[in-house]
Amino acid sequence: MATAATLDAVVRAAGPQLGSLMERVEARLAQLTAGHGAVLARHGGATIAAGGKRLRPLLVFLAAGEAPTAAGERLVRAAAAVELIHSASLVHDDVLDRAPLRRGQPTVVAVAGRTIATATGDLLFSRAFAELAAGGEVDDVRALSAASSALAAGELMQRADAWDAAVPLARYLERCELKTGSLFEAACRLGALAGGGPADALARFGRRIGLAFQLLDDVLDVSGPASRTGKARGTDLLDGTVTLPLIVARERDPRLAAVDLRALDSEAAAEEVCDRIAATGALEEAKRRALAVVAEAKAGLPQLPQRQRATLELVADGVVERYA
Amino acid sequence: MATAATLDAVVRAAGPQLGSLMERVEARLAQLTAGHGAVLARHGGATIAAGGKRLRPLLVFLAAGEAPTAAGERLVRAAAAVELIHSASLVHDDVLDRAPLRRGQPTVVAVAGRTIATATGDLLFSRAFAELAAGGEVDDVRALSAASSALAAGELMQRADAWDAAVPLARYLERCELKTGSLFEAACRLGALAGGGPADALARFGRRIGLAFQLLDDVLDVSGPASRTGKARGTDLLDGTVTLPLIVARERDPRLAAVDLRALDSEAAAEEVCDRIAATGALEEAKRRALAVVAEAKAGLPQLPQRQRATLELVADGVVERYA
Repeated sequence: MATAATLDAVVRAAGPQLGSLMERVEARLAQLTAGHGAVLARHGGATIAAGGKRLRPLLVFLAAGEAPTAAGERLVRAAAAVELIHSASLVHDDVLDRAPLRRGQPTVVAVAGRTIATATGDLLFSRAFAELAAGGEVDDVRALSAASSALAAGELMQRADAWDAAVPLARYLERCELKTGSLFEAACRLGALAGGGPADALARFGRRIGLAFQLLDDVLDVSGPASRTGKARGTDLLDGTVTLPLIVARERDPRLAAVDLRALDSEAAAEEVCDRIAATGALEEAKRRALAVVAEAKAGLPQLPQRQRATLELVADGVVERYA
Repeated sequence: MATAATLDAVVRAAGPQLGSLMERVEARLAQLTAGHGAVLARHGGATIAAGGKRLRPLLVFLAAGEAPTAAGERLVRAAAAVELIHSASLVHDDVLDRAPLRRGQPTVVAVAGRTIATATGDLLFSRAFAELAAGGEVDDVRALSAASSALAAGELMQRADAWDAAVPLARYLERCELKTGSLFEAACRLGALAGGGPADALARFGRRIGLAFQLLDDVLDVSGPASRTGKARGTDLLDGTVTLPLIVARERDPRLAAVDLRALDSEAAAEEVCDRIAATGALEEAKRRALAVVAEAKAGLPQLPQRQRATLELVADGVVERYA
């Protein structure tokens, strides 16, 4: 997640309209989770409220640029829908990982069990589409359903490739684009559609930023420190998830290419592999590649009004800054 | 599920156009699960292929009546989308119930584990919305997202009410409408929207038929026999799910009102409660109420062309026939 300081800078640079839109999307999210029964209100509401920095809604609004006031309602719907899909996927991920905490709060699965958590995720998914359908813009539904399909396809790919230390780089990058890039892409496309901007070019920007976000997240899993990420180093390795640091490191250290991830049976064993990965210099190389993707995203931005370009670049830098 | 004989009769009564539409929806479903990676193709494809009788697609087409040929594409999309949502909910239900078999085939969760099954369900959900969005009809998306929200809300309600032998009748009926009625309702609404028929009235018909379907399903869980339903009697009771037979029986036998479902620790114990429920005559009463709902659905059908009315009534009768 980009830091709070970056986001404050973005809001300042973008002007008061953005702050007002961000408040409206919060209110809409609260209303959407409150109106569908006590269980969604409690668990869906808690998930949404625990919140994070609302990076995807922010991208919706920034991709819209100086959209006419009349587009505000469409933008708020789109931003809420994107955040609902994101929240739904987090709730389902926590079920699968049996995660006790997220963002320092107990997860839905920890509080209420697998059944309620799975159904809560399904309901958040469904409310996202209902929110867009109510707005009447079928292009928006198309963009969101493409992203939600990609999220699930990325999750399936991750499981298909689990424990395979030889997974090809291209396949890893495709998985990151599906799992993370696609929803950033949808956020930018939805904003551009409402704002009348160049949708395909802004969507590509979003996809790149999302990819970089995932690459850096994967570096953080290996680099830690745990005090910063809130989890032990090497949790991906323990799940059998092979990411960029190991992909780079295995070229440099043949013993890492031969590592049997299924044999890792403790956090200490995973941390030791993290240390061996770090010793190859792979973390710096992985970070360098992520920064190159961010640079590419910024360079590929289309002709845009000065203020819009500046705010999008600030967000791109914010993705990097979380690593620094 | 209505019997194959009933459905054959429906197809004969409705004319060759229906058979052709049913073939097109099969082809579309096969194509939709084939086009999104090997895992979906395998597991989603197996779920779809194991299939059932396609009652919900059938309702889409029948609710459309003698729709113009140009409406065929919209109808096929709608029918595929409804079946995808149904399949997604079955895949997730099987994850939660840890079910080994469905329709005599191993479930996705049994073959591939919880993670892949959850993601497969999410992908089937997403493809349903993508299918409708590609058709460009936002009213269709609205109908489907209302139904998928209702499905999840019904699941949440069922878990909230679990183990409560005193659950009020009205709340049980609301749960059945959410869990089952809403998707039958959406099927009829989608057909009516494409065919230009009276959408609200046909949607109400679908909702009633779905409710009756669920009531009879709940009777079958208590009545068995296991040789017919493919599962032991009383599996709902073992899950803590209180249904109409117990709700009726507890008024007639106070000892049943006091039963502690959490104390049921074996199939034999659940079957004994089933026997006590049956001894009160509650199964006949529950069946009578379901038949009354079917009669109400038929009586509430709006003015329709003769052939369309006849086929819809055949489906309504088919829902009853599965119990006979």
